[in-house]
Amino acid sequence: MGKGVEWALHACLELMWARPDHVGGARLAELRELPAPYLNKQLQALVRSGILTSTSGPRGGFTLARSPEQITFLDVVEAVEGSQGAFTCAEIRQRGPLAAKPEDCQAPCRIAAVMYRAENAWRRELARVTLEDLAADLDRSLPDAAQAVRTWLRR
Amino acid sequence: MGKGVEWALHACLELMWARPDHVGGARLAELRELPAPYLNKQLQALVRSGILTSTSGPRGGFTLARSPEQITFLDVVEAVEGSQGAFTCAEIRQRGPLAAKPEDCQAPCRIAAVMYRAENAWRRELARVTLEDLAADLDRSLPDAAQAVRTWLRR
Repeated sequence: MGKGVEWALHACLELMWARPDHVGGARLAELRELPAPYLNKQLQALVRSGILTSTSGPRGGFTLARSPEQITFLDVVEAVEGSQGAFTCAEIRQRGPLAAKPEDCQAPCRIAAVMYRAENAWRRELARVTLEDLAADLDRSLPDAAQAVRTWLRR
Repeated sequence: MGKGVEWALHACLELMWARPDHVGGARLAELRELPAPYLNKQLQALVRSGILTSTSGPRGGFTLARSPEQITFLDVVEAVEGSQGAFTCAEIRQRGPLAAKPEDCQAPCRIAAVMYRAENAWRRELARVTLEDLAADLDRSLPDAAQAVRTWLRR
């Protein structure tokens, strides 16, 4: 998993705090000292997935495309990394001198089935947490962060 | 995640079926038409993690180092891929004009905490399933597979 996931999650949090303002990619990059072109790549992926919208013009920039309780960690992670799981099954059961016949391989290999079940547990956990949950959590642990970020982004 | 995980899991299954015989890496590779040098790299990783043992000599080769109910999917996956999770937190909260102070960052960033929780759910799922569970599952769905593999590996 690339660094883009961490960057995209932070950017979404900061855009949530900035609402209703739109924030340019360069400004978001400056806030966390990130390389702007690469952060921009993640922001574009979030736009393509319908998590952010972007507008041009003097007050343009990025903002959340829907409300924070409708954006889960899984949405953001899959926007950046794709929805394909980490494990890939190359169907090696169908190779070699004892190769299984294709007609006997309608169901996933039992090995792959275990790996997919684990990936689904991972997805379920990420789908349970929304940006709103994250904001509520941070309001408790870092009560001044939201206002500080909002003020700085607006300057 | 590399192809080595699928290969290592299949190899462990086949070594379980072959017991008490030891099987050479080249023979295991031939069974699934895998490139022997690369499969061997995975087998060596499994030896280093204490999942397999290897012996030399005419009847030498690899075998399970402990009983199949004591080898989980997580053991095999971590032997090949390491125990580090997929998500890495670069502590970007400690960067830039609003950087959090190190003393305020004793606990993991709340974003990383969610990602780690999901990875733990993935680990838990893989730790729940042993090679013995896999064998029992396959005995039901492919009752002839174990004997066929055992016979072929012994030839």
